[in-house]
Amino acid sequence: MESETGRIEAFSDGVFAIVITILVLEIKVPHEKGTELWHGLWEQWPHYAAYVVSFLIIGVMWVNHHTIFVHLSRVDRPLLFLNLLVLMVVSVIPWTTSVLAENLTDPDSANIAAILYSSWTVVYALAFLSLWWHVTRVGHLFHDKVDKDGARATRLRFGLGAIAYPCTVVLSLFSAPLTLVAHFLIAIYYAANQIPIPLVIEEERLASESDLRK
Amino acid sequence: MESETGRIEAFSDGVFAIVITILVLEIKVPHEKGTELWHGLWEQWPHYAAYVVSFLIIGVMWVNHHTIFVHLSRVDRPLLFLNLLVLMVVSVIPWTTSVLAENLTDPDSANIAAILYSSWTVVYALAFLSLWWHVTRVGHLFHDKVDKDGARATRLRFGLGAIAYPCTVVLSLFSAPLTLVAHFLIAIYYAANQIPIPLVIEEERLASESDLRK
Amino acid sequence: MESETGRIEAFSDGVFAIVITILVLEIKVPHEKGTELWHGLWEQWPHYAAYVVSFLIIGVMWVNHHTIFVHLSRVDRPLLFLNLLVLMVVSVIPWTTSVLAENLTDPDSANIAAILYSSWTVVYALAFLSLWWHVTRVGHLFHDKVDKDGARATRLRFGLGAIAYPCTVVLSLFSAPLTLVAHFLIAIYYAANQIPIPLVIEEERLASESDLRK
Amino acid sequence: MESETGRIEAFSDGVFAIVITILVLEIKVPHEKGTELWHGLWEQWPHYAAYVVSFLIIGVMWVNHHTIFVHLSRVDRPLLFLNLLVLMVVSVIPWTTSVLAENLTDPDSANIAAILYSSWTVVYALAFLSLWWHVTRVGHLFHDKVDKDGARATRLRFGLGAIAYPCTVVLSLFSAPLTLVAHFLIAIYYAANQIPIPLVIEEERLASESDLRK
Repeated sequence: MESETGRIEAFSDGVFAIVITILVLEIKVPHEKGTELWHGLWEQWPHYAAYVVSFLIIGVMWVNHHTIFVHLSRVDRPLLFLNLLVLMVVSVIPWTTSVLAENLTDPDSANIAAILYSSWTVVYALAFLSLWWHVTRVGHLFHDKVDKDGARATRLRFGLGAIAYPCTVVLSLFSAPLTLVAHFLIAIYYAANQIPIPLVIEEERLASESDLRK
Repeated sequence: MESETGRIEAFSDGVFAIVITILVLEIKVPHEKGTELWHGLWEQWPHYAAYVVSFLIIGVMWVNHHTIFVHLSRVDRPLLFLNLLVLMVVSVIPWTTSVLAENLTDPDSANIAAILYSSWTVVYALAFLSLWWHVTRVGHLFHDKVDKDGARATRLRFGLGAIAYPCTVVLSLFSAPLTLVAHFLIAIYYAANQIPIPLVIEEERLASESDLRK
Repeated sequence: MESETGRIEAFSDGVFAIVITILVLEIKVPHEKGTELWHGLWEQWPHYAAYVVSFLIIGVMWVNHHTIFVHLSRVDRPLLFLNLLVLMVVSVIPWTTSVLAENLTDPDSANIAAILYSSWTVVYALAFLSLWWHVTRVGHLFHDKVDKDGARATRLRFGLGAIAYPCTVVLSLFSAPLTLVAHFLIAIYYAANQIPIPLVIEEERLASESDLRK
Repeated sequence: MESETGRIEAFSDGVFAIVITILVLEIKVPHEKGTELWHGLWEQWPHYAAYVVSFLIIGVMWVNHHTIFVHLSRVDRPLLFLNLLVLMVVSVIPWTTSVLAENLTDPDSANIAAILYSSWTVVYALAFLSLWWHVTRVGHLFHDKVDKDGARATRLRFGLGAIAYPCTVVLSLFSAPLTLVAHFLIAIYYAANQIPIPLVIEEERLASESDLRK
């Protein structure tokens, strides 16, 4: 069954890698010619900003996904489909990114696009949390050395952490550029502070933590 | 020869991962600006619906493909090319999805697009069944622990299961949106009920089934 | 160094999988609406034909690439870059396919597009042959059980086999659709008849051949 | 933790494979019909030239990335994110390539596009150097057989090598086509001359070097 996890990881990695790479297709070549090209390149700043933020968000999602699957040794049918749900949600991000980038400087539609972008991160957080709840509920899919009760206890912290996303939806009503900045900061925060999944054997936990914190 | 299977699986996983991810390229950024953006986003509902259904269909296809290859330990030339045929058919789905989404709300062309979409799932079912028939005919490609007669006996049930697809072609003559709903329900059904491939050693079969059913 | 081969194979498989999958992006959604959709779908037949032929060609290329790398256990710098050259040539095929499909029914430009398409298969054959020559020249990259002299002797047959491609360039001057048919037949032929790479140990060779011929 | 490296490599390989393959999407099908197709194909020469150069640049980047990760056995959080930064920069190359190709024959905008293209290679060199500095600073991520002091000593040579990129930015002010030629030559140079990462055990180093130099 080890190989079972292997192929889900490979498939998921493939999807993450493609999603994060086709993000760049949303940045168009400016139509401006001659010395106007500088201007045309500059005008596209919302696309660059949205690209960087979405790249970072998907990157952090991949790291989280990776962290969970490293602790699993078995796969069941619900996991297969909750994982598919997570991938479906992730795959839509290039589109929400394009919608936001296209509308970021339009005074009337910027907030609408920001609400769409932020709401989608909420949808992702929900999909990811339901995968995590399924995995921790019984704990039958974990490696033997994972501390199942400890893993279950992280649910609340995971859930609380996800509260940042609904807040960005509210922020979207006021300022789209600030919303983008908020998503950038949240991604940086989660990149630096991840909730560790506790292991049964204390020594191993410390060793693995020190590796990850260095 | 084990590694032979490994590389076919990796290549197929790559194709499935790319197909499922480039589905999103069929959802366009609305041209509407200002407060009209809400309206523009709403107008695209056929694209969202078609995206979800096709994502689910391809996801289930991947799970099925995966299930078959987990039971194989050898590869022969016909398998290589039947697998290529399956991948060729799968790769066309983003296009049939786009055609359906573009025409779903057009009273005259919706049925035509639905016939195309449904017929293509029939083509997929035929390609997949011929791969399964080849694999089960002699059974020389299976792992030793696979019950070859039992595997051969699943052909009829696989074939009967595929009868749902021609039915959606008929349904397409009457209603394109209902056809999309039907495909959604069929995908959900196959996601939840898969025909298990029997193993020789009863204990292992029970163990693996209980894993998959949990 | 085994793992060295592994990562080149994985990278190459990724490129092949992406190239074969993005082929479908050349098939556009017809602009025709209403009952004209049938007509619009029919009008695109050159795109479908070109898709099938190119998919098959790339699939056979992948099988050939795969066959060579299965026999290698070491990697040197020239191999790395000859492989990159092969991938560069393969990656251009979606474009030559699009050019051919767009022009296949235009009486004036069809032959030009067919010459481009056919010439590109010549370029591929040359790139692939130079990789094969490098690998067989010294034979230092092969697994121990590969018969190096036997492998070197296949060069001529490989080279003769590739003569079909320049012939399609000549055929392109007369008929673009016939050229496409010729490429289809050549791909089918190579799919069914591959030159085996001989192994030192006769028993293993027979066993592996019987596997591949079944 | 070995597998940890494995999954980062797989994810990175995926991104490199996709980036290098979607480069071809920047080459468009000419609009010219009839005998004008020759002319239309010829007019696109900047796209072909830019395609070849960028393919080579990304290919060399992949080889470099590969070389570094072959020497690592552990992964820490900064490496994860410096790697993500490298991938983010690489993923933008299809866009800088398109901008350069579109403007290469425009007397006014060619230099601007060349500056963009060249500057981006500087950004890549900086991202890659910071990954290399992190890896060599403590050396705690290396395999045991890597000579950590020797690896640290390569920093200067790596850094000096990267000086070619700022020079291309200066060259971009004078001639865009010459800049493209310069990037081609630099890529060829780095393809042929790579700074080896020294190993502790001299015998192994010699063996691996002779493999790579053959």
